[in-house]
Amino acid sequence: MNQRETLKNKNGVLEIGGVSATKLAKEFGTPLYVMDQAYIENMCKVYKETLEKEYGDGLICYASKAFSCKEIYRIVNNAGIGADTVSGGEIFTAKSVDFPMEKICFHGNNKTKAELEFAVNSGVGYIVLDAYSEADELDLICKKLNKTQKVLIRVNPGVEAHTHHYIQTAKVDSKFGFSIDSGEALEIVKFVSKKSNIELCGLHCHIGSQIFESKSFALAVDKMTGFYKTIKTELGLEFDVLNMGGGFGIYYAEDDAKKTCAEYADYIKIIAKELKYNVIVKGIKKPFLILEPGRSIVGEAGVTLYTAGRIKDIKSIKKYVAIDGGMFDNPRFALYQAKYTVIAAEKLNEQPIEKYSIAGKCCESGDIIAEDCMLPKINEGDLLAVLSTGAYNYSMSSNYNRNLIPPVIMVKDGEARYAVKPQTYEDLLRNDV
Amino acid sequence: MNQRETLKNKNGVLEIGGVSATKLAKEFGTPLYVMDQAYIENMCKVYKETLEKEYGDGLICYASKAFSCKEIYRIVNNAGIGADTVSGGEIFTAKSVDFPMEKICFHGNNKTKAELEFAVNSGVGYIVLDAYSEADELDLICKKLNKTQKVLIRVNPGVEAHTHHYIQTAKVDSKFGFSIDSGEALEIVKFVSKKSNIELCGLHCHIGSQIFESKSFALAVDKMTGFYKTIKTELGLEFDVLNMGGGFGIYYAEDDAKKTCAEYADYIKIIAKELKYNVIVKGIKKPFLILEPGRSIVGEAGVTLYTAGRIKDIKSIKKYVAIDGGMFDNPRFALYQAKYTVIAAEKLNEQPIEKYSIAGKCCESGDIIAEDCMLPKINEGDLLAVLSTGAYNYSMSSNYNRNLIPPVIMVKDGEARYAVKPQTYEDLLRNDV
Repeated sequence: MNQRETLKNKNGVLEIGGVSATKLAKEFGTPLYVMDQAYIENMCKVYKETLEKEYGDGLICYASKAFSCKEIYRIVNNAGIGADTVSGGEIFTAKSVDFPMEKICFHGNNKTKAELEFAVNSGVGYIVLDAYSEADELDLICKKLNKTQKVLIRVNPGVEAHTHHYIQTAKVDSKFGFSIDSGEALEIVKFVSKKSNIELCGLHCHIGSQIFESKSFALAVDKMTGFYKTIKTELGLEFDVLNMGGGFGIYYAEDDAKKTCAEYADYIKIIAKELKYNVIVKGIKKPFLILEPGRSIVGEAGVTLYTAGRIKDIKSIKKYVAIDGGMFDNPRFALYQAKYTVIAAEKLNEQPIEKYSIAGKCCESGDIIAEDCMLPKINEGDLLAVLSTGAYNYSMSSNYNRNLIPPVIMVKDGEARYAVKPQTYEDLLRNDV
Repeated sequence: MNQRETLKNKNGVLEIGGVSATKLAKEFGTPLYVMDQAYIENMCKVYKETLEKEYGDGLICYASKAFSCKEIYRIVNNAGIGADTVSGGEIFTAKSVDFPMEKICFHGNNKTKAELEFAVNSGVGYIVLDAYSEADELDLICKKLNKTQKVLIRVNPGVEAHTHHYIQTAKVDSKFGFSIDSGEALEIVKFVSKKSNIELCGLHCHIGSQIFESKSFALAVDKMTGFYKTIKTELGLEFDVLNMGGGFGIYYAEDDAKKTCAEYADYIKIIAKELKYNVIVKGIKKPFLILEPGRSIVGEAGVTLYTAGRIKDIKSIKKYVAIDGGMFDNPRFALYQAKYTVIAAEKLNEQPIEKYSIAGKCCESGDIIAEDCMLPKINEGDLLAVLSTGAYNYSMSSNYNRNLIPPVIMVKDGEARYAVKPQTYEDLLRNDV
């Protein structure tokens, strides 16, 4: 078993948050998303405290696109951090549990007018602009509502983080942001700074996802502060806020670096250290620092439990074990060939002796969850656990093949409760005429 | 404009089923899935009549995983064809509109026990077995219910169709089926034929998806009938049914073959001709022929309408136009780098002069719908139409980024009505605790 600090081996059986996988499967059925609440809370705490200690004034905003439902906004709010949202739907969900709206950033390359109005009316802290016409539209909305909205602008520092090309976002060819190097970022800063009903407080960048090279973050801080200095010199503007986004890499499978919660703080430490240094060297105002980790807060907190179904042994080629889930609850292998760690949740003390590919139940050959997993001998009915499924699994789930989206369970201190209740067949028909 | 027979150019504006794109967008908003009902009905009719005329006894089963909702089962049932289903959810949906259950095939590499029970209790025509243990399980279920269930077995004829490797399903390394060549198919035929409460009526194969080479289907018929002959010779068994699956390729973009509805019948003609010939040559019983087209019935019937949003011109690199949809309503570019034809729905008479990449609104760089589309100059607010989105778009849609799944509209004879109503933000919270 690739053990994380949140997962225990109790006499060969996986235990999450003090509840055995056996008990969870029996009580809630499979497939089942299980989230370790203490892990999430601990990550929020570690990030918040590290930011305060190493930098000072700032805010951690949980990037809720990683996993969004009412309960997660309650949990991160109780932990004293903010949220990064990317749609009216996320803002609506946060609002429904009285999340403090001033601690929300609203991102997106193509927010609709209705979403912008909703965000302004809801009082979100910062709207992160990503187009000239968006600045125009937002300014008009604010005028009509007689409000002033704080905004940031998404810029592109041109730092390439080493990660899957799909989730690189800071290349010059990106649907996101304005390039600093090309001069386009400076132009939009000038443009937005002249608007009457939007208050330009600073800039935002996000250099990618699942990044392990802390050097990338240091480089991005250097580029961003250099640009703040340019803006100060050329426009006489000084910003109060810097939003460095997220993208901290987590452990999925053996190619990834494994970290304790405490070690994740290193990402923040590096950014804080670089920023403090650059502020002094470049003679700019020390900004309020916003950071937006998502995956690293919830990813490793999550485990998906499946029941092994049909086993297909294609002689001298491959052994498939089919599970009762698949790409409808976890499309990341199909989308990115993402690697996961799979374990036999009730056979943790048995030696891995066979290689299996884990196939989903969808009628599609590409519906695979993981390939070449070394496991003990698997029989039908065995409980399998896929680790690090807390991020971009439930949030990307679908009813493909008209399968039901599994429920989400929060576990803590030996107690398990629903965060998201199971779908029913009736739910599938709800909007059907 | 890449014109299909269903789409009209009325003074430069796209018209679907007699309704202009302008009117549809105004009345129902965007993003919007639009389905041409007459096209669907015509495809059902063409397939049904061709099968009857060219072969005789058989059944077209619409592969409903391509697009499943209550209304599509009504439409295909009215057209006199059956349905292929792949989950309890699809059976439940079909049942909810009183679809004749005996005209349903139930597929899947890992049907759950609950799904098998539900299928038997619902009286589905054929369950297509894909594992030894599934045969055992189904036999026990039927004994308990004092019923006999007709079954087929999924076999693998080893025909490789030239298509995207993700959607090839007849290679020997597949989670589906039992290989004829390896002898495994013969073994499971023996096994299942001895079961008391399941009646083995024949075999099923499905050689892939989006196939244009009719030779593949001819080869598969040859392999399947050869195997029927082997079974007759070695086991003394003669089957009443042959299910050749689906996989007929449709037109998405310029690399694909363009066909009229009538030309799609060629797929059926080739299979019918080959089968009639092989039945005589090989001296086997002429089977009841089941065919399962899905994509070709609904794919080209569908158009998704989007409103162009922010336009990002990255000098000397690329022009992005962002739409109000994205991978949450059409994940096929992200999943398979699938190509689509995009048109400016209200500028059909204008010359394409610029190259655009169509980006979705999700906060993910991979959220692209199409690349390098030649279009007239696009402005914010322009209506864009993505063609051939009737299959595997709505059925694969998700609430990723907490975006809402667009509604589905059926258009026919100048009238438009909801098949699936729009989601609301409240729907997102329905199962949230």
